[in-house]
Amino acid sequence: MCEAHVFLVSDNKEDEIMENCVLIKPDGNKLLLVDLFGAQKFVEAKIKEVQLLDHKVVLEKSNEGNK
Amino acid sequence: MCEAHVFLVSDNKEDEIMENCVLIKPDGNKLLLVDLFGAQKFVEAKIKEVQLLDHKVVLEKSNEGNK
Repeated sequence: MCEAHVFLVSDNKEDEIMENCVLIKPDGNKLLLVDLFGAQKFVEAKIKEVQLLDHKVVLEKSNEGNK
Repeated sequence: MCEAHVFLVSDNKEDEIMENCVLIKPDGNKLLLVDLFGAQKFVEAKIKEVQLLDHKVVLEKSNEGNK
């Protein structure tokens, strides 16, 4: 299975905010995350990196995008 | 293995622009795509949807993002 771990970078720390993520869908300055069990989460973030072989998605807060 | 097929949506058509994609990294209004063999591609696009179970990433052109 190819679900991913989703991490949110904040203050140079990575916090895991979802395991088993199956869908990531940007919506304005937010992201919809959906896990294997259908649980949904909206985060004010944007995608920093999708590392498919590592099953890892790294997000950063939307307001840090213009640094 | 969990590499993905990357599609670019244009005029309601999906064109496959990369097989075996292992890394997606936004950089300004472009995306860096890297495949399993290290081949790199820059596209002027943003991520529309990442469907991890289907190994499918859908992109849309950057200038269509504000529609």
